[in-house]
Amino acid sequence: MVRYINIRTGARVELVDITSRVKEVVKDSGIGDGVCYLYVPHTTAGITINEGADPSVKRDIIQTLQRLIPRDAGYAHMEGNADAHVKSSLVGASLQVLVEEGELLLGTWQSIFFCEFDGPRHRRVAVKIMGT
Amino acid sequence: MVRYINIRTGARVELVDITSRVKEVVKDSGIGDGVCYLYVPHTTAGITINEGADPSVKRDIIQTLQRLIPRDAGYAHMEGNADAHVKSSLVGASLQVLVEEGELLLGTWQSIFFCEFDGPRHRRVAVKIMGT
Amino acid sequence: MVRYINIRTGARVELVDITSRVKEVVKDSGIGDGVCYLYVPHTTAGITINEGADPSVKRDIIQTLQRLIPRDAGYAHMEGNADAHVKSSLVGASLQVLVEEGELLLGTWQSIFFCEFDGPRHRRVAVKIMGT
Repeated sequence: MVRYINIRTGARVELVDITSRVKEVVKDSGIGDGVCYLYVPHTTAGITINEGADPSVKRDIIQTLQRLIPRDAGYAHMEGNADAHVKSSLVGASLQVLVEEGELLLGTWQSIFFCEFDGPRHRRVAVKIMGT
Repeated sequence: MVRYINIRTGARVELVDITSRVKEVVKDSGIGDGVCYLYVPHTTAGITINEGADPSVKRDIIQTLQRLIPRDAGYAHMEGNADAHVKSSLVGASLQVLVEEGELLLGTWQSIFFCEFDGPRHRRVAVKIMGT
Repeated sequence: MVRYINIRTGARVELVDITSRVKEVVKDSGIGDGVCYLYVPHTTAGITINEGADPSVKRDIIQTLQRLIPRDAGYAHMEGNADAHVKSSLVGASLQVLVEEGELLLGTWQSIFFCEFDGPRHRRVAVKIMGT
């Protein structure tokens, strides 16, 4: 079964910590050991794992992406969000985290972030847990 | 079972839309609910998901990668394709898409692209579907 | 079951070939057909697949990342490793390789590399094999 996490982003570019909401889906699944798949069905967004404790880490990720892939750089795509599409392909739309004894196997400092590159918008992340 | 999608690329750098061919493999598998794994067994290519409707999006992805990782930049690898290896690691060689009721759970605007970074060549993408 | 590969890195930035150790885990699992998941539980490291035969390829990956994301670039995160966090999100912390007849389905030139971006440190990679 696929479950969706709904997100309302508040800025053009933003990293939203969805760790606790993913943990809820894992818990609700009742699955002990397996794999948790996360998938973003959008072409101007992405998903990543990084440090959640210090909010300056997500700021640095955003700033570096803006510096490397600025909003205006003579793109062919005429909707004003070509940079968001490129960022989406570099960060990626899918990832997986292992599940053991009903818990996500995240490292001590790891949080899961939905990456908004062309907000604010209503977005969603598909979550599926498969047991061994 | 692993199935292969064979691709004949026509340029050094090119994004090839393989969505309909991946959908065929999903259909042939007969699997209702599960996960579709895509894997590129090459070191100068990659796989990504992005907008397929407007071809200028894939052009922008190619141009941005060329700007950030130019063909000549004093690389150590002497085969003239060092840039292609670096692009391969940034875009990635593996991804997964969820499958529900026999259909790939792609977003409205999402297409799956094989990314050629050192063509033209004969390439292939491994596809495996695992059911729940 | 989740198995861990322990790694002692020897430099601040380094790519460590872990292919043979992942192959051992696959062999020990006794699983014939399935998927091998690799996961890095650190926020200043990553995992990638690229050419292992010529060591200059990993040097080019490291150099390009240093050029694009230098150690000092006015970051907000004050621990001196903000660049390592950003690299981690670009390279990625999770990937999967298909398994067929008990073997990892790597391409001829592909090796699996643990990417250290803030070493030297003790690190680990989580490995899980799921059979069909």
